Amino acid sequence: MALTIWCNSKFNAAATELLRAGTQAYRTIFSAHANSSVLTAGQSDPTLAEADIAFGQPDAEDCLRSSRLRWVEVSSAGYTRYDTEEFRLGFQARGAAFTNASGVFADSCAQHLLAMLLSLNRQLPACLRDQLTDHSWHYTERRYASRVLTGQTVLLLGYGAIGRRLTELLAPFGVTIYAVRRQTRSETGVRIVAVEELTRVLPLADHIINILPENEATVSFVNARRLACCRPDARFYNIGRGATVDQPALIHALESGRLAAAFLDVMSPEPLPPDHPLWTTPNCYISPHIGGGRHDQDEALVRHFLANLAAFERGEPMTDRVL
Amino acid sequence: MALTIWCNSKFNAAATELLRAGTQAYRTIFSAHANSSVLTAGQSDPTLAEADIAFGQPDAEDCLRSSRLRWVEVSSAGYTRYDTEEFRLGFQARGAAFTNASGVFADSCAQHLLAMLLSLNRQLPACLRDQLTDHSWHYTERRYASRVLTGQTVLLLGYGAIGRRLTELLAPFGVTIYAVRRQTRSETGVRIVAVEELTRVLPLADHIINILPENEATVSFVNARRLACCRPDARFYNIGRGATVDQPALIHALESGRLAAAFLDVMSPEPLPPDHPLWTTPNCYISPHIGGGRHDQDEALVRHFLANLAAFERGEPMTDRVL
Repeated sequence: MALTIWCNSKFNAAATELLRAGTQAYRTIFSAHANSSVLTAGQSDPTLAEADIAFGQPDAEDCLRSSRLRWVEVSSAGYTRYDTEEFRLGFQARGAAFTNASGVFADSCAQHLLAMLLSLNRQLPACLRDQLTDHSWHYTERRYASRVLTGQTVLLLGYGAIGRRLTELLAPFGVTIYAVRRQTRSETGVRIVAVEELTRVLPLADHIINILPENEATVSFVNARRLACCRPDARFYNIGRGATVDQPALIHALESGRLAAAFLDVMSPEPLPPDHPLWTTPNCYISPHIGGGRHDQDEALVRHFLANLAAFERGEPMTDRVL
Repeated sequence: MALTIWCNSKFNAAATELLRAGTQAYRTIFSAHANSSVLTAGQSDPTLAEADIAFGQPDAEDCLRSSRLRWVEVSSAGYTRYDTEEFRLGFQARGAAFTNASGVFADSCAQHLLAMLLSLNRQLPACLRDQLTDHSWHYTERRYASRVLTGQTVLLLGYGAIGRRLTELLAPFGVTIYAVRRQTRSETGVRIVAVEELTRVLPLADHIINILPENEATVSFVNARRLACCRPDARFYNIGRGATVDQPALIHALESGRLAAAFLDVMSPEPLPPDHPLWTTPNCYISPHIGGGRHDQDEALVRHFLANLAAFERGEPMTDRVL
C-alpha cells in the first residue's frame, strides 16, 4: 500500500507542481490549514493521523499522538517547538525520524550574516542614513571609520550548518575564527572552544555572531555579564533566536557605548512592535527575520524534501536528520 | 649624498612616526601644502624641485618640470591626473618610476564591493529604510525578495588589483565571473571577454560591477545603449570613477525599471550636491567614495611606500609600478 504524505506548507505554484510531480506514487493530504510562513506553528489537524510522513510545520502534539507517523520533515531550520525531551523520547521510542531544512537555509543565513558584517565594517547603514536624511557627504569620517575584515577576529556562538558555511565564506578574508559549542571536536578553519572558555575569548572578538537555537540551555545566553566581556569596538549579530539574548542588557550595552553596534535578524517578540526600544537603540540595526530568505525558497524546500523522501524509501541516510 | 624624499600627504601621528623612522637615512621635505585626503590634487610646490623621490599627491606639472625626480609614489589607487600621454612620455624618457597604492586599497575596495552586493541581495537598505521610517515589519516581502549569490553571474568592467581580490573573495560563493578588459590574457576563476563581446555578456549578469579608471577611453563607458542590454533584475555598482558612467542614462534606467538597483561609491561631481537627483533616484544607493577607506589607511600607505623604497634602493621590482 502506498505511503501517505501529509503537508501543511503552502508553496508557490512552481514548488507545488514540483511536489505533486515528485509524490505521484504516494497518497497525499494537503492540510486545509496550510500556512505559507515557515515560522508559524501549524494548527492541530486530525488528518495528520492518517499520515506516514509529515512535511511542513505539523503540530508537535499531533505528531506525538500519531501511532502511524514514521518521519517528519519541518520546512525550517529552527525546530524549537519540537526540541523537547517528550518529543525526543516519543520519536526515539517508535524509531521515527525527524529532519529539518537547515540545508536550504544555511547558505542564505551565512550570506545574510556576511552581509551584516561587511555592511557594518563598510559603514553602509551610516551612509544610507545620510542619504535618507540630509544628503550630507561625510567622506573623511566614514572613510576612516571603515574597516577591512582582514586580520579581524570572529567569534561564533553555536556551530552547525550555518557556522560551517560562514566559515567557508570567510576563508579568503584571512580572519581568525573561534566557535563556542558543546561538542568540542575540532573543525577545519575554526578554533572550537568550550562554554567555560567564553569569557577568555569574548575580549578577542571584533565580531560576535549568535547562531544559537532556542532551548532550555540557551535562553538569555547573551547576558549582561557576557556583554561586559566584549570590547567596546566589538559588533554583535543575532541570526539564531531572539530569546537567546537578554535584550534589555543588549540595549544598555549599546546605549552606554559598551558595545559598538548590533545587527539583529531575530528578536523577541516578532514582529517587533513599532514602539519597541530596539528600533531606536543607537547603532542597533534590524532585519525582520529574513536571514534564511531566498528568492527560490519554496522550490529549494521541496527539492530538499524529495531528496530525503528518496533516501527514506531506500533506507539511506537522510540530509539534516535531527532525530 | 643622501637622496631627498618629498612628501605632501598629511598622515596621522602613528603613520607620521613610522615614516620618519623609516626615512632617517634620507633628507626629507614635508610640503607646507600637505593634504590629508588622498583624492585631492596637491598644490604646486617649488620645493619638489629638490626631491629625488616624491610621495603623496605631487602636482603633475611639477613632476614633469623636475629634472631630478626619479620616482613618484601616489597615495591613491586612482591616478587620473598622471594618466596622460605627456606624463608617460616624460617619465619614460628619463627612466623615472611611477607607482600607486593600489595594493593598499584593493582589499578594502573589494570588500566594499562585496558589502554592496550582499547588502542588495539581502535587502538591507530596504530594512534600514523601514527602521528609519515607520518600524514596519515586511517579513514575507523582504524574505522572498532576498537572494543568494550562489549560482548568480557577476560581470566586472575592468580587471586589475581590485577585480582580482574580489574574485578571491567570491570563490566560495559558486558564482560565474566575467570580466571585460583590453588585454584578453586569461585569469584564474574569471572568463575574460573583449569589449566587443560586452553586449553579448551584459544580459547574462545579475551584478554589473564597474571598476574602470577614468581616461579618454572610459568616459561615459556605461551609457544608455549598454544599460539597455542589462536584465531588468540586474544590479549595477560603481567603485571606479563617476565620469565612466552616463549618469542621466543610469537615472533613466532606474526610474523606468530597466535596471533593478544601483549602488554607487563614486559619482560625478564629488561631493554630490544635496539637490542632485542621484540622491533620490529609486533603488539608487550611495556611499561617499569610501570604498578604499580603512581604519589603518595611513599606516598601510606608509608601509607600502617604505617597502617600495627598500626595493628602489636595491634596484628590485617595486609593488604596484605603473611606469
